[in-house]
Amino acid sequence: MELQVNNVFKHIAIAGLGLIGGSLAKTLRERNLVDKITGYGRNPERMEKARQMGLIDEFFIGFENGLDDVDLIVIGTPVRTIVRNARELLPYVRPGTVVTDVGSVKGPITDGIEPHVPDGCFFIGGHPIAGTENSGFEHALSDLFQDRVCVLTPTAQTDQHELDRLGRFWEMVGSRVIRMDVDSHDTIFAAISHLPHMVAFSLVNALVDMKDFGDNILQYSAGGFKDFTRIAASDPVMWKDIALMNRDNIITVLDRFEHALSVLKDAIARKDEHEIEKLFERSRDTRRAI
Amino acid sequence: MELQVNNVFKHIAIAGLGLIGGSLAKTLRERNLVDKITGYGRNPERMEKARQMGLIDEFFIGFENGLDDVDLIVIGTPVRTIVRNARELLPYVRPGTVVTDVGSVKGPITDGIEPHVPDGCFFIGGHPIAGTENSGFEHALSDLFQDRVCVLTPTAQTDQHELDRLGRFWEMVGSRVIRMDVDSHDTIFAAISHLPHMVAFSLVNALVDMKDFGDNILQYSAGGFKDFTRIAASDPVMWKDIALMNRDNIITVLDRFEHALSVLKDAIARKDEHEIEKLFERSRDTRRAI
Repeated sequence: MELQVNNVFKHIAIAGLGLIGGSLAKTLRERNLVDKITGYGRNPERMEKARQMGLIDEFFIGFENGLDDVDLIVIGTPVRTIVRNARELLPYVRPGTVVTDVGSVKGPITDGIEPHVPDGCFFIGGHPIAGTENSGFEHALSDLFQDRVCVLTPTAQTDQHELDRLGRFWEMVGSRVIRMDVDSHDTIFAAISHLPHMVAFSLVNALVDMKDFGDNILQYSAGGFKDFTRIAASDPVMWKDIALMNRDNIITVLDRFEHALSVLKDAIARKDEHEIEKLFERSRDTRRAI
Repeated sequence: MELQVNNVFKHIAIAGLGLIGGSLAKTLRERNLVDKITGYGRNPERMEKARQMGLIDEFFIGFENGLDDVDLIVIGTPVRTIVRNARELLPYVRPGTVVTDVGSVKGPITDGIEPHVPDGCFFIGGHPIAGTENSGFEHALSDLFQDRVCVLTPTAQTDQHELDRLGRFWEMVGSRVIRMDVDSHDTIFAAISHLPHMVAFSLVNALVDMKDFGDNILQYSAGGFKDFTRIAASDPVMWKDIALMNRDNIITVLDRFEHALSVLKDAIARKDEHEIEKLFERSRDTRRAI
């Protein structure tokens, strides 16, 4: 019996119709949550395709057009281009507009955008924790954000009213909104998302050159390894950008992980049964407690 | 239109009614593939429960009883106890009996058993690649081996006819049988199974002490980390035994993995975009090719 607040924003613009931007458009459309969706992109043929699919009402290639009637701009372009796109579009936003993004690193994005926001406009960083192995609006899903967390990263400058409003927007598309500061976001995601990706990429790379690997050794796997390395098939360019943008936090957690691994390796090397079992128990108990 | 060869073995004994032994019994029973199943275990109450559940026809606590009529003995006890149990039961097997096991390390098991097999009897190592997070025959599944690989590890001494017969047995319960030598098995499984477990255990342990970890940071995870660390909840004692029994191979692959990880970390540290992307592409392409 939840009261849904519709039309939190009436006219939204989505810059970059990838999987996230496209799914957001599709969800807003199917649930009839906004009056108008304007798309921004670089490729007119693809934007026209998105329009014909009904994801957007209209599109523009440059930000100099169409932004003067928009309430909310969601920047859904690749993480590395978010700051540049924000700076390009900010001169054209009208007072009262909220600008947000969907990048998975928040520190450099917030630092790169916040000082350039015109008076009377608002930037609030966002990170919907959602995605699939596919990319592009052709794979858009209208339930991509359903029951997923969307992190918003307010700063000391963030307007509380607009933060609430943006939170309701993400709740309308099904997400559970969590607020945290920018540094906590980048530390936590270095640990639970970026580190596992670095590990998975490296695990696959470590095995590629094995003598028996060419013989399709994964056919013997009971699923564990396949699950484990599923994320090793993630987009190399996106992850290169994340690795560079969250570099210091990632190196810190890599150091921690290397240490934990060397403790285990040493225990195995010296056949320290008690220590090995203790390490495995600790991991098992932690994982179970989650 | 496959011809199924029933009654490859008429009377089988299963030593150790864990998940694997229990599921084997359940499958043989439900598909009516053998005439009689005898269970061996240490705990009379549990064995009686298995009997009442219909998994076994009879049970004994010691191997001195009941083995004189058995065609096939499957040792399904924990990997570390397989050699001891095999040596205890071998004096009681009749000529023509095949003894196999389900341990996930094959070198030390084969070395520990083969020299003790009486003339006219046969030992062939086995490793059904199947399991769940649960243990014990109460969680037995009659489709646990369906469409899974079962590795058999013949040696120079293995009787070809009995190897074929044991292969047909595992095919009857739904498995695809692959034969490989003992050393290849232990090398390959160090890479695709044991290494990922060591990595997953260490990854969880590396994050436990993080400042924000206590705040249930995994709630922010979009599934990737949970998949990744699912195996970190595996049985500590079993994995301690595997780590010790396949120690040299595991240390070799840990070295390889540590090297791959340090190459990536160095590239991130010096912001080498080209190298980072190349490493991620290599992993992505390998994973996709599988």
